[in-house]
Amino acid sequence: MKTYLDCIPCFFNQALHAARIAEASETDQKKILIEIGKILPKFSLNCSPPEIARVIYKLVREKTRLEDPFKNIKIESNKIALGIYDKLKEKVRNSKDGLLTAVELAIAGNIIDYGVNNSLDINKEIEKILNVEDRNIKNRKKASFAYDKFKGALERADTILYLADNAGETVFDRILIEEIKTLYEEKQIIYAVKERPIINDALIEDAVACGIDKIAEVVSSGLDTPGTIPSLCSKKFLTIYNKADMIISKGQGNFEALSEEIGPIFFLFMAKCHMVAKGLDCKIGDVFLLSQS
Amino acid sequence: MKTYLDCIPCFFNQALHAARIAEASETDQKKILIEIGKILPKFSLNCSPPEIARVIYKLVREKTRLEDPFKNIKIESNKIALGIYDKLKEKVRNSKDGLLTAVELAIAGNIIDYGVNNSLDINKEIEKILNVEDRNIKNRKKASFAYDKFKGALERADTILYLADNAGETVFDRILIEEIKTLYEEKQIIYAVKERPIINDALIEDAVACGIDKIAEVVSSGLDTPGTIPSLCSKKFLTIYNKADMIISKGQGNFEALSEEIGPIFFLFMAKCHMVAKGLDCKIGDVFLLSQS
Repeated sequence: MKTYLDCIPCFFNQALHAARIAEASETDQKKILIEIGKILPKFSLNCSPPEIARVIYKLVREKTRLEDPFKNIKIESNKIALGIYDKLKEKVRNSKDGLLTAVELAIAGNIIDYGVNNSLDINKEIEKILNVEDRNIKNRKKASFAYDKFKGALERADTILYLADNAGETVFDRILIEEIKTLYEEKQIIYAVKERPIINDALIEDAVACGIDKIAEVVSSGLDTPGTIPSLCSKKFLTIYNKADMIISKGQGNFEALSEEIGPIFFLFMAKCHMVAKGLDCKIGDVFLLSQS
Repeated sequence: MKTYLDCIPCFFNQALHAARIAEASETDQKKILIEIGKILPKFSLNCSPPEIARVIYKLVREKTRLEDPFKNIKIESNKIALGIYDKLKEKVRNSKDGLLTAVELAIAGNIIDYGVNNSLDINKEIEKILNVEDRNIKNRKKASFAYDKFKGALERADTILYLADNAGETVFDRILIEEIKTLYEEKQIIYAVKERPIINDALIEDAVACGIDKIAEVVSSGLDTPGTIPSLCSKKFLTIYNKADMIISKGQGNFEALSEEIGPIFFLFMAKCHMVAKGLDCKIGDVFLLSQS
């Protein structure tokens, strides 16, 4: 997905939010916005939004001298999500189609996003996730929810690459991976996280904190972008990416970065901004399981 | 009201919107955003938002070489609002307290704002206005709706200065002014509009198109700011402003510009952005009749 001019005000908003999370003074917050104003001419609209977001957040990190402003938030998100792990498992156990429920929960977990949502109340959102009726997962359009295709691809695949999105959401990913493992014990699942801090995206430490390393091979994509941009990935990761029989891509950032790539990709995400919603002809909050291939 | 850092992304949004209204090419839209980025260091947060908005919209006018990008929108707004003039009058006639209904309608008419709302469907909004149940005017907090104080000031005042906001909204202002004239024939009412185009703010031509000149003296404030900033007003207007026994200030822009001024001002407006809503501890769309004195 290319970057729209409408994304530019949003980048300023995100920078301001991140600067506040990093407890920057108002003077420093203003300085950050001014710096972004200065580098605006360098932004190419042909890049995907995560590629520009990388520059924005790097600037915030440099100006606030804080390598990982969202660290505490990530720790807290993991903790809260782990706290409902048993309830999530129960939900999957008690459902007619455990895999479908696990997929739904993995997408619902995508609500945990501090890049887009500035005033996220995780506890409140998790309440909604646990109350299926409140989730608009049930309102999904059939064409936008390629579950049968997903199941078919899962059956056929030997190696599955799972592209993580945010910390906390990792617990929901674990639920889905465990369900896949229950159904297909022999599948090789590789869980890819970011190399360096970017917003509240999961790092190796988050995957480990949420127990993913016990059920999948955890690798780093080599990235510090809030979306998997192939040209910026490490060579080692690209080999895995190119060899995978199936790619499960979580979150809007990965969708923005990979929507024009060719591959056996399944995008599991929630539309979180006006431009993505416009492109997909949906409302903000609508959920998707899109098949790329 | 001072400008918040949160207003900065909003200024970019407004500029983009205005550039599109002016039918600027995507290249020119981007150039405008880049120009705003360049002048960002000059913005003082001690100014009120309308003071900065003035610079933003001036830049859009210069870059698009279009003196009044919102001209057609204003003509259309006047036309649509005039089309329901009879219905509005009937509403006032049939109500127990005609003045209160006229005040309510004058505030409801404040929905016609292209600065804040990028995708305004006037017809839809007017439908809501005519359907009292749909309006959250009824949900107003008593403390935020100083109607008794307003009525008292009206009774005592000889000269009333009415600060207009947007074109189209002028018809709703006419309803209120006519109601005041019915109750207090002898009051002198002066209706102040902007001198030069700024967003869809009413100019003299809009006041005339909506028939205000038949019931009040129409004057220009000398401004091209979306809010009445005393230091920028014409001397002639300031004399009127300082002599008025009562000032009826319409819209959020005038509230932002005058909220820290001392005077017999009554603010009739709808909260339209997060920062104003935050400051007033209310939701976006909440309506106010605030007494300054």
